Amino acid sequence: MAMVKRTSFENDDCPIARSLDAIGDWWSMLIIREALLCSRRFGEFQKQLGLAKNILTVRLRALVDQGILTMAPASDGSAYQEYLLTPKGRGVFPILVALRQWSEEFDDHPEEIATPLVDREKARAVPKPE
Amino acid sequence: MAMVKRTSFENDDCPIARSLDAIGDWWSMLIIREALLCSRRFGEFQKQLGLAKNILTVRLRALVDQGILTMAPASDGSAYQEYLLTPKGRGVFPILVALRQWSEEFDDHPEEIATPLVDREKARAVPKPE
Repeated sequence: MAMVKRTSFENDDCPIARSLDAIGDWWSMLIIREALLCSRRFGEFQKQLGLAKNILTVRLRALVDQGILTMAPASDGSAYQEYLLTPKGRGVFPILVALRQWSEEFDDHPEEIATPLVDREKARAVPKPE
Repeated sequence: MAMVKRTSFENDDCPIARSLDAIGDWWSMLIIREALLCSRRFGEFQKQLGLAKNILTVRLRALVDQGILTMAPASDGSAYQEYLLTPKGRGVFPILVALRQWSEEFDDHPEEIATPLVDREKARAVPKPE
């Protein structure tokens, strides 16, 4: 796919455009997906997503700047920093569910069984909407 | 925001990644939004989105290749071609709703009132999920 130079929609009147400005690139969405699946450390994100360190650094910083991730000392007392989802970041979950459901309904790989999306608060698989 | 060279996730195991491969850039999503709001012609998309002709050409062609838009002769019998949403394209609607609701809940422009999203089949405003 062609690379397209991006205009900022940060101050656009349309809330869809503003959402896309904040999270509308692949890596941001996939980083948030990994965070929802409990990745917290730089190395975990890198391993799961297989992307270059410099790109991951830029994307993580942008997500922190957007208030989607926050940095905190490692929960195990080690020297690592962890990236934790804020409420705004956890709020991306329904967008990922919608992306997944669209793919499952319309894409060309129906035979594949992927990781079920689980709503951790309700501890059950996310049902397909009516 | 930095431009990031994109890897294709077309054959990725994750359906979220595959969705992002198909529609995960701003212009594609905004073109689909305009098509849902009844834009059909090249000039209408260009006017509504204010983007360069060469970029619009590339994005429209990609959306046709993905089976999201289809081309048809103009409904008024003129020589224009129209871009119409396929069922797969109309299926993007819940993703746009999720993007919008996230923006409305978490962004910094709460005072703005934007065009309500209307589910044309049900002819009512889309309710916020519980």
